[in-house]
Amino acid sequence: MNFDDPIDRRGTHSSKWDKMESLFGVSPDDGLAMWTADSDYATAPCVIAALREAVDHGVFGYSWEYPAYFEAIQWWMKTRHDWTIDTDWVLTSQGLGNAIALCLDVWTDPGDSVVIFPPVYHEFAKKINKTGRKVLECPLVRDGDTYTLDLDDAQSRLTGAETMLIWCSPQNPSGRLWTPDELRAVAEFAERNDLTLVSDEIHHDLIYPGNRFIPMDVAAPEARHRTVTLTAASKTFNIAGQRTGNMIIPDATLRAAMKQRLNTLDYGPGALAIRMITAAYSPEGAAWVGAQMQHLDSNRALFDATINAIPGLWSMPLQSTYLAWVDFSGTGMSHDEVTARLRDDARIASSPGPGFGTGGAHFERFNLATQRYRLEEACARIKAAFADLQ
Amino acid sequence: MNFDDPIDRRGTHSSKWDKMESLFGVSPDDGLAMWTADSDYATAPCVIAALREAVDHGVFGYSWEYPAYFEAIQWWMKTRHDWTIDTDWVLTSQGLGNAIALCLDVWTDPGDSVVIFPPVYHEFAKKINKTGRKVLECPLVRDGDTYTLDLDDAQSRLTGAETMLIWCSPQNPSGRLWTPDELRAVAEFAERNDLTLVSDEIHHDLIYPGNRFIPMDVAAPEARHRTVTLTAASKTFNIAGQRTGNMIIPDATLRAAMKQRLNTLDYGPGALAIRMITAAYSPEGAAWVGAQMQHLDSNRALFDATINAIPGLWSMPLQSTYLAWVDFSGTGMSHDEVTARLRDDARIASSPGPGFGTGGAHFERFNLATQRYRLEEACARIKAAFADLQ
Ligand SMILES: Cc1ncc(COP(=O)(O)O)c(C=O)c1O
Ligand SMILES: Cc1ncc(COP(=O)(O)O)c(C=O)c1O
Repeated sequence: MNFDDPIDRRGTHSSKWDKMESLFGVSPDDGLAMWTADSDYATAPCVIAALREAVDHGVFGYSWEYPAYFEAIQWWMKTRHDWTIDTDWVLTSQGLGNAIALCLDVWTDPGDSVVIFPPVYHEFAKKINKTGRKVLECPLVRDGDTYTLDLDDAQSRLTGAETMLIWCSPQNPSGRLWTPDELRAVAEFAERNDLTLVSDEIHHDLIYPGNRFIPMDVAAPEARHRTVTLTAASKTFNIAGQRTGNMIIPDATLRAAMKQRLNTLDYGPGALAIRMITAAYSPEGAAWVGAQMQHLDSNRALFDATINAIPGLWSMPLQSTYLAWVDFSGTGMSHDEVTARLRDDARIASSPGPGFGTGGAHFERFNLATQRYRLEEACARIKAAFADLQ
Repeated sequence: MNFDDPIDRRGTHSSKWDKMESLFGVSPDDGLAMWTADSDYATAPCVIAALREAVDHGVFGYSWEYPAYFEAIQWWMKTRHDWTIDTDWVLTSQGLGNAIALCLDVWTDPGDSVVIFPPVYHEFAKKINKTGRKVLECPLVRDGDTYTLDLDDAQSRLTGAETMLIWCSPQNPSGRLWTPDELRAVAEFAERNDLTLVSDEIHHDLIYPGNRFIPMDVAAPEARHRTVTLTAASKTFNIAGQRTGNMIIPDATLRAAMKQRLNTLDYGPGALAIRMITAAYSPEGAAWVGAQMQHLDSNRALFDATINAIPGLWSMPLQSTYLAWVDFSGTGMSHDEVTARLRDDARIASSPGPGFGTGGAHFERFNLATQRYRLEEACARIKAAFADLQ
């Protein structure tokens, strides 16, 4: 369980490392990958042990979603999130990108508008657009150290063509944790406007000490008849390459519609992914996640101290996620100049803020989930790249 | 590479073994699983080695379909099947059940009829029905030791509502390998009736010595504008649990339509599956497949000798696949009596022939891909269960 043990991911078919050159022009030879949301950590020993057992057995024939898998998910939601679910409510998708695409397919029609609250995970808008739906942006409001909701403003933007709301909780890219009152207000907003409420809670386990995550279904159970919650072990345990996630749907009618779609597509998850998730959602897995959060907590402290010491740069305080959201607007530089310094001088591939929609123009998102020596190097390079401001 | 090394799959979440009691009333404690089409063999050492390397590294973040994967598929088709493909033609699905469902989704509409040639893999009809399409059966004709096509009869059955033909080559359940003339006749039939031709070639590597498999695209390249070929490493290497297969589509227009569907569904394969397939489609993998076929060849010889020595039972000579197709009609028994003897007396879970459609009424399909000691036990039990006939 040492998160600082050196691990080199270059040449392992890691998108984050092996695609950074083609996507960002930053070579992995001397560059640092701080973009896509996976970590550079080895997964939990209990997950590795389950995989080893499968590999030692050597037979990779047909399997299915057996009760221990659903019970592990149920146990995790109860013990980590105080959320009581039926195992029946859990459907499996090919990760949450696929889950969002399936939700759009099942509950919206081409031409419908879908409400999102930017700046937010850039793939929401991409998926809405590529399935022929329209993005309706209801921007978050910058309020001191954080973002807040303005649902009156949101209401005034609606046109009547909206049929779905995709909600991000914990919020990517700001790490914001929503309060029960905010969650209830969003659920009421969905109710008032008759929107299917898709709550993407993929980062729900990456919560910093002293903070608490509350599932939408716990805060607003009265909205169950329109709520689909998306969860996954992928960020928590760094197993996103297996492309497996869950749609948790308490409402029988909504669930039947999604089950029918999965059934006609003949969808079923890979056997190794099911094993990994079943092993992950366990007391051993929970202990590992706790240790990971300690590591991330000191990473973010180091990163924020470095960034905030540079005049004109500001890192939003994180309540959750390993994704730091950094505002460069105080430098007066264009986003192009900021990225030129990051890519060419610091040799860092981070996620460009403009991709997150309205509000992201002067930001850059940095993935902090890496070994300390690598984060220290990143900090030193950012400091040097903006040395003229100091 | 010893295919007779004992392997116990019970309690490993193997569908074949751990679901036989609930599905067939045959307990794995004393029963033998000879139904679903996976083998009881450990996969090839080169696949295991690739997995071990990934597990030792321990990081399971995002990956992608990298060139080595497509090149391995291209190499395999060329060296094993003398089939020249572009790497661009290859799309990845969640296995071939999913691929068939996607083909139905993309190229047919609800209410359309889909042509199949029974007795044939039971899931064709199931998928056609569950997606709201209709099955149009054009039965194969029993001709001595094998089945043949009657395309004049098939033509007379068509109603004009047909838009797709799902072809099985090598044929499951008979193991029949189609000749170039037959393949061309099927392609012409598809052309004449304007049917999208889906050629399911999943069993293409399981060819007995002295036989030769020919891909539809090699026999009838003139039908490329309507042909989608389905292949997978899943049967060949016993990795079906990873649920990954390929759609090979030379025609740019057809390919664009399927790509678009995969893209809007945000489909992408699991990273470990991609690694396994890349490792499998290699010279080491090919050598292993050769050894596996030797083992299967002696298994089928033992099985056929046992079956054919029992008056009233007859096992169709296999050219390919590890699925023996046994005719019990000579016993004069009802299918119920046959299965009662197999389940209750022999304690064998085999696949009921009637599920394969017209022509399957008096048959039962037996999966022979197991260690010799287990096949010997199965033979002894079948012999005993039908002792009164001998
Ligand atoms: C909010 C959010 N949803 C979904 C995803 C993607 O999930 P998956 O990898 O399961 O497709 C991410 C990945 O970064 C994310 O941040
Ligand atoms: C002819 C045929 N097609 C497709 C399949 C299923 O393929 P997959 O496991 O990739 O869904 C089988 C499995 O037995 C089969 O025999």
